[in-house]
Amino acid sequence: MIELPYLLKHENICRLEGGNILIGDRRVFPFEKRFEVCSSVAQVAQALRSMVTQGGGPLEVALQTMVFVTRQMQSGDLPSGFSTLADAADQLIAARPTNTTMQRTLQGLLAQVRMFASDPDELAQAVGRQVQSILDGFDRLYHQMGRMGSTLLDQDSVVLTTCFAEHTFLLSLAYAQESGKKIRVLANETRPYLQGSRLTAPSLEEMGIKVQVVTDGMGATFLVEGKVDAYMTAVDLLCMDGTVVNKVGTLSNAIAARYIGVPYYAFSISPDQTKQGRDDVNMEMRSPKEITRCMGLPTTLDSIGGLYPAFDIIPPALVTALVTPKGILKPEQVKRSFQ
Amino acid sequence: MIELPYLLKHENICRLEGGNILIGDRRVFPFEKRFEVCSSVAQVAQALRSMVTQGGGPLEVALQTMVFVTRQMQSGDLPSGFSTLADAADQLIAARPTNTTMQRTLQGLLAQVRMFASDPDELAQAVGRQVQSILDGFDRLYHQMGRMGSTLLDQDSVVLTTCFAEHTFLLSLAYAQESGKKIRVLANETRPYLQGSRLTAPSLEEMGIKVQVVTDGMGATFLVEGKVDAYMTAVDLLCMDGTVVNKVGTLSNAIAARYIGVPYYAFSISPDQTKQGRDDVNMEMRSPKEITRCMGLPTTLDSIGGLYPAFDIIPPALVTALVTPKGILKPEQVKRSFQ
Repeated sequence: MIELPYLLKHENICRLEGGNILIGDRRVFPFEKRFEVCSSVAQVAQALRSMVTQGGGPLEVALQTMVFVTRQMQSGDLPSGFSTLADAADQLIAARPTNTTMQRTLQGLLAQVRMFASDPDELAQAVGRQVQSILDGFDRLYHQMGRMGSTLLDQDSVVLTTCFAEHTFLLSLAYAQESGKKIRVLANETRPYLQGSRLTAPSLEEMGIKVQVVTDGMGATFLVEGKVDAYMTAVDLLCMDGTVVNKVGTLSNAIAARYIGVPYYAFSISPDQTKQGRDDVNMEMRSPKEITRCMGLPTTLDSIGGLYPAFDIIPPALVTALVTPKGILKPEQVKRSFQ
Repeated sequence: MIELPYLLKHENICRLEGGNILIGDRRVFPFEKRFEVCSSVAQVAQALRSMVTQGGGPLEVALQTMVFVTRQMQSGDLPSGFSTLADAADQLIAARPTNTTMQRTLQGLLAQVRMFASDPDELAQAVGRQVQSILDGFDRLYHQMGRMGSTLLDQDSVVLTTCFAEHTFLLSLAYAQESGKKIRVLANETRPYLQGSRLTAPSLEEMGIKVQVVTDGMGATFLVEGKVDAYMTAVDLLCMDGTVVNKVGTLSNAIAARYIGVPYYAFSISPDQTKQGRDDVNMEMRSPKEITRCMGLPTTLDSIGGLYPAFDIIPPALVTALVTPKGILKPEQVKRSFQ
């Protein structure tokens, strides 16, 4: 069994400890391994808005927060009643509006535990059982998709990636390497928060996969020079028509990959069935102040502003294939496969 | 007459003072206005390698260094004789190999002053006169090209740019704005040294032109959303076939601009007649350590490497037009116009 790196072990993403929710702080990794300690749903929501964790992190945090809330209802620290749980879910969902996996998972969870709402102990047990089952299910999917993704890579593949594509991407590379393929990764540093430099590169190194950091403007450079065999990213939101929403910077590489004829593969657990295409995407515009800072230091004068759309919308025509639990799909197969 | 911003005034790029060469340090601007003080050609070459100045800066530094050397020959601090001057030129040329304008200008200067080599005073006078004439000539060209470039912009134009495109670009925007057009700029921050955030954005603000900083991965984002009317950059090296060599990150935007049908205009004083096309380009690969730092702070673990080609090579097919002293040319017109 291939082992996940530090950042992706459940206990380092989020855990309940001493009546608090501990969230692994990805903003300071790899320089520090610190946890943000939250003792209320409002604090968790604020931590999510502040991007203490990102990618798949917010979903796992949200699930553990549901467990936390039912325990607080048991102890009387929060009023019992289903609306306490539903309100908590709403607060978490509102904290990061673009990636709707959390929203869909929380709403599914609420529907499944609603019948136990009259008894706090039964509710807590049901939520705990359900959350564990969801997390176990994700773990199985990650490995299944990782094995699938590994088949897309040839011997001596150089893979370009953006941001931190987490389990499915890392496992694809690990399974490819386990099968004797030689893999090398070029990781966009991914400004403004440098997830490529700080999260992806150290995690790959930890897994024994060769990696080099490049700036966000260099994807096209290496693609056009013929030095990249595949571009691979996670998907923050997959629409039913195969439109991919992912970290800003992804579109630039997807266009360059298409220009030079290199495949772009994206990993997604499932599409959002309420999003038919780009017109349905609720784009998260973040503070321009995040663009004019790097690791806390100002990069320009205070008087100068910026623009920060958190995500890119990549049209299906630029996506070669999606690695999903239903197989490796062309974008136009998503709707049929998940309906 | 439109005034240039602080960074582009001759005395702030480079000046001779108290027997030293003072080079405006673009690495710390706009946070500090400091000068690197050099008292030998070797120190100047080291300053150029360390990117104390960049873009058109090294050329101006090299010219002033020629004046400095002839003065040192007059005072006896350097041995008189033409080879002292020629050796100094060689040291400077070797410091930044990709942009060959400096090389061509220095070689032209040496050819013109060679006849005065036997008398240190006459040589110093000839070099001083010639350098002033070259700088005056550039100033005239900058304004001429700025007026030309301004005609490429429509009312309410949004212009995307990368790195610090200096005189011709800034003057184009200023002349466009002077003629009543409303101009807004999106400036790629331009990692690793952030010339977009630190040099371009403050200079535009100083000139009264609206500017917002975006990360290097966002050019495609705004291009594809239809929010950009033109992509404009400087040219570090223009080949005779219209191939443009410019700061890494340029290619990514040029491809996205072509994908969505937005023009890409580049500014060049002249092509390098010894470079027919991309195969003749001597690419400067810089230290990977520059990629894994931001403003001096490490962005990842020390054990992780990077790749840093300083420039992109943009094929002529992606260049809409070149703004040159011979007019606004299509890439395929360069050879004919400059032969």
